[in-house]
Amino acid sequence: MPSSSTVGIFGGGQLGRMLAQAAPALGVQCRAIDPSPIAPVADVAEHIVGQYEDSASLRAFVEGLTCATTEFENISSKALREVAAYVPVYPPISAIEASQDRVVEKETFVRLGIPTPEFAPIDSVADLERCRSLLSPRAIIKTRRLGYDGKGQRVVSGIEEASRAVQELGGSGLILESFVNFSRELSIIACRGQRDETKFYLVTENLHRGGILRKSIAPAPNLPDELEATAQTYIAKLLDHFSYVGVLALELFEVNGQLMANEMAPRVHNTGHWTIEGAETSQFENHLRAILGMSLGSTKPRAPSIMLNLLTAIPDLSSVADRPGFALHDYRKASAPLRKVGHVTLCDLDVRRLRENSSVIESLLVERIPEPRDK
Amino acid sequence: MPSSSTVGIFGGGQLGRMLAQAAPALGVQCRAIDPSPIAPVADVAEHIVGQYEDSASLRAFVEGLTCATTEFENISSKALREVAAYVPVYPPISAIEASQDRVVEKETFVRLGIPTPEFAPIDSVADLERCRSLLSPRAIIKTRRLGYDGKGQRVVSGIEEASRAVQELGGSGLILESFVNFSRELSIIACRGQRDETKFYLVTENLHRGGILRKSIAPAPNLPDELEATAQTYIAKLLDHFSYVGVLALELFEVNGQLMANEMAPRVHNTGHWTIEGAETSQFENHLRAILGMSLGSTKPRAPSIMLNLLTAIPDLSSVADRPGFALHDYRKASAPLRKVGHVTLCDLDVRRLRENSSVIESLLVERIPEPRDK
Repeated sequence: MPSSSTVGIFGGGQLGRMLAQAAPALGVQCRAIDPSPIAPVADVAEHIVGQYEDSASLRAFVEGLTCATTEFENISSKALREVAAYVPVYPPISAIEASQDRVVEKETFVRLGIPTPEFAPIDSVADLERCRSLLSPRAIIKTRRLGYDGKGQRVVSGIEEASRAVQELGGSGLILESFVNFSRELSIIACRGQRDETKFYLVTENLHRGGILRKSIAPAPNLPDELEATAQTYIAKLLDHFSYVGVLALELFEVNGQLMANEMAPRVHNTGHWTIEGAETSQFENHLRAILGMSLGSTKPRAPSIMLNLLTAIPDLSSVADRPGFALHDYRKASAPLRKVGHVTLCDLDVRRLRENSSVIESLLVERIPEPRDK
Repeated sequence: MPSSSTVGIFGGGQLGRMLAQAAPALGVQCRAIDPSPIAPVADVAEHIVGQYEDSASLRAFVEGLTCATTEFENISSKALREVAAYVPVYPPISAIEASQDRVVEKETFVRLGIPTPEFAPIDSVADLERCRSLLSPRAIIKTRRLGYDGKGQRVVSGIEEASRAVQELGGSGLILESFVNFSRELSIIACRGQRDETKFYLVTENLHRGGILRKSIAPAPNLPDELEATAQTYIAKLLDHFSYVGVLALELFEVNGQLMANEMAPRVHNTGHWTIEGAETSQFENHLRAILGMSLGSTKPRAPSIMLNLLTAIPDLSSVADRPGFALHDYRKASAPLRKVGHVTLCDLDVRRLRENSSVIESLLVERIPEPRDK
């Protein structure tokens, strides 16, 4: 057997699992570190059961690796740097660290000329006084660090609600963001290789409910070409700024026909799961190609796609399993309320049929996609 | 973690590897038994290193399996029956056994009304006398069992050459087949589920050189609709005859605008590798779906595809890795002359570009595809 590359992955959730699933075709092996003995990656890659900051576990993790990467941005700098002493870590630690702090992230957007909602760091109730103008009619207060899926944030209106939210969220280490009345949420995913080549996936429209992604549509319907180009320009600025290697996702708001950056994710991303079937090379394969110094694959779409997250539990989809372009991805996780346990992608050149089949599957989901409470 | 299905696979070569690669998306695990400690499956599934007829190894193999299948038809009946005492084995052992013996296989074709070249069992030089008419101008003498990739066969002309070939091939257990001057080689792959539903992949044109598959084209260019339908009729007869469950491949000759069956393979097949990218559900996923009693996925094509086997060693394909619809599959095997170490699939709605890109890649192969020596 030829000696081969082994990629280390921080985290063994569904993203690590799908990275590992993309590896064998390239002749590549993966090893993930994750403290949970039942991490979804365990089926498909070598799995080191260990804490991310435990030196003995990290030593076992780095042994013989070609390079390391992460499936989640909140991996500690300590763990990243300990591993980086032995093997290259991609994406660059600077990009991962910037994404860990909403203030640093947004300051990066501003510095690079990427529009983003107004914001201010908040470390006390008193700090709110300086940004009264942002508080009406509505604003969002979030923790600067460790938020995900809508956790650690409150929508507030006026100084009183804001003060209460600041206290509830810990009193400091927060960010106040002006509330943007966006018409829809979009994202763009791009990949940059070690020879500076950059490839973009189609801009995707995303539907969140309760702070959790429910549905992605690629391409985003009726997106003007200028906005597609603008999204590419924005993410390219970030890629170049960080001398980035690997896949980067940028979440965007469409507001009055313009784009604003919401946040970035220095990793493969839920809004790019459709690329497994819907693009010529998936985000997972291209991330591996990039971090291993291989040439990138084509990111062109094969056909329009819709991705539906399966929350709580995998529904019975046997009645739809042979619909055109149907693909199931079961992460093999235990059921739990609103947990992402899998996803379905539909990929179909016939867009009307694609939408019809999506509606049918949406009606079978354990967690139906609720209508928005307010507009 | 939810309890999940585990599929046992006899054999851990590239077919077992690609079956195992299709499993995680379905939430399924695989375990392969293969005597080689460096079997390609080892990266991607649990691997029992053991002889197929060793009872202790087989006990370890069957423990907790949902069902078992095979990546090669020459697995011994003894091993199949030992496992079948504990868990269901698919495809049916009767189909596997029929495919192990070229005479039984061809007798099955004849019984089902599927045209096949004339043949006669040969167990001595004297047997040749009875089939002199088949010997001119040319015939093929093959071992009834254990032939693959053109091994164990001789093209002969006249009784003298035939007698020599019979002696060289062991004197008995042989088959004489009339030589068919086919215009091209085709194959059809179908999948039958546990609720008797059958799905067909597109008929594929295949190019062999030196007895080894070099290239598959799907759909087979310029194939009349009647022949597509005829191929489906033939394979459906076999599927029904065996109450088959899983993927079956049928190799065909096109001769004077008619089809003749050459041989069948009760397993996923090299001429169906294009289905990973080129069909809505791959042969590997549908085989797993069938043997696990799941509903089958759509077998419709996504786009025209060309599959090129990589023989001897993986070439440097970095210059073509981003061509439209390019996908590499590296089996992680040591290099060896004419060994199948990987394959490339191109899948592209633009057929002219598809062919051009295929030509470019063919020029990069370690083993170029030689022109036929005679026509």
